[in-house]
Amino acid sequence: MQHPGVASAQTYVTPEARLTAEGIVLPPAPGPLGPYRPWVTFGSLVMTSGQFPFIDGRLAYSGRIGGSIGPKDAYAACRLAAINGIAQLKDAVGSLTSIKQIVRLEGTMQVAMGFRDHPKALDGASDLINLVFGEAGRHSRMIYSNPEMPLDSPVLIVLLAEIRD
Amino acid sequence: MQHPGVASAQTYVTPEARLTAEGIVLPPAPGPLGPYRPWVTFGSLVMTSGQFPFIDGRLAYSGRIGGSIGPKDAYAACRLAAINGIAQLKDAVGSLTSIKQIVRLEGTMQVAMGFRDHPKALDGASDLINLVFGEAGRHSRMIYSNPEMPLDSPVLIVLLAEIRD
Amino acid sequence: MQHPGVASAQTYVTPEARLTAEGIVLPPAPGPLGPYRPWVTFGSLVMTSGQFPFIDGRLAYSGRIGGSIGPKDAYAACRLAAINGIAQLKDAVGSLTSIKQIVRLEGTMQVAMGFRDHPKALDGASDLINLVFGEAGRHSRMIYSNPEMPLDSPVLIVLLAEIRD
Repeated sequence: MQHPGVASAQTYVTPEARLTAEGIVLPPAPGPLGPYRPWVTFGSLVMTSGQFPFIDGRLAYSGRIGGSIGPKDAYAACRLAAINGIAQLKDAVGSLTSIKQIVRLEGTMQVAMGFRDHPKALDGASDLINLVFGEAGRHSRMIYSNPEMPLDSPVLIVLLAEIRD
Repeated sequence: MQHPGVASAQTYVTPEARLTAEGIVLPPAPGPLGPYRPWVTFGSLVMTSGQFPFIDGRLAYSGRIGGSIGPKDAYAACRLAAINGIAQLKDAVGSLTSIKQIVRLEGTMQVAMGFRDHPKALDGASDLINLVFGEAGRHSRMIYSNPEMPLDSPVLIVLLAEIRD
Repeated sequence: MQHPGVASAQTYVTPEARLTAEGIVLPPAPGPLGPYRPWVTFGSLVMTSGQFPFIDGRLAYSGRIGGSIGPKDAYAACRLAAINGIAQLKDAVGSLTSIKQIVRLEGTMQVAMGFRDHPKALDGASDLINLVFGEAGRHSRMIYSNPEMPLDSPVLIVLLAEIRD
């Protein structure tokens, strides 16, 4: 797989520059939906809470993947939720250059009966993480799916990341 | 948000005292339902296994949230499962004062079709954790939902907590 | 519960020898289904990605637990996915003797409506882990279930393990 944003040793490109090159303006980190924190650090680990495909605090996508949400929108919704996850990481560590590696991606999806293509949908998040963080973005991941999601969201994403010393 | 149990520097109140003030008697940590452990430590991290809304080893609530389980009982079931999670933490560390912070709350719920208010239900666990641990209770969280849960339980809760040095 | 593979201090048996005694040939670690890694290390922790009940890259079981998948096959599917998870751990650390403890088992299942026996199914993974790793295998665990799983798989398993110094 090609990661166009992966830098060689000579031409290190920051995650922020890769986002800009991709035309992505990182939003402010979305607030929580209740009495919890959008992210927590444990030693050198940052864990985000579940991230929605929000733009300005509103769902940009809602409904069921494999139902009203087709494959392109499913991919885009996962990508958008991952952008919000990266915004949380930046809020936690200041500069994304401080991220040593993305340890884990969790994606849970609201799907229609008969839907089986979760991995392709979640690639929307994985591809973005790889693009933005290059080698440091090469993560493990776990997929869940759900009968009914909070707010009718098609997806919730969690990122676990390691901070550099 | 007000946390009535949050102590100022001068009047530190232990988590155990906050439980007592709330009228909560921490039960013995529930045993596992199979050949696994109710909690494990990894370095300074304690991870519980999934906690049910058990009282004396029996479900105090069963059924679907948004179906036979209304909003108040959903909130109460999440709170009760979190009490069992705190009992596991106490079993692991002896005194809850040893808990440096609650790192993560996971909640998975058995819901009826059309239910969307998972966050309000899980607030039953979040509010309790904040009340008992104060600032140290400010956790990240992730919500899942399920078509069918073990034992017909409406909720399963996991707590990840950091132990003080 | 008896763990036939548990060694006394005098007769330490390696996890590999226990696998052999059980007639299990550990397969090559299955590759990922997309642009992510099958496992990642974070300090002394190894986290696998979701593991399917694959044999040679194909599902050995498919369908719904409690529907077309009966209790014995559900147990066997969880066991097989755990074997693939152990193959990932071996790929990560070389010798399974390097595993200090299995920290956490996650199992998410594709179930038929009315199914409630997730714990018994996941025991297929728990029993194997206990058998192979003995005391070091005594893990925490969390169960999820899903309306529709990737590839129509009945189960996905994640292992978190601690590596010895």
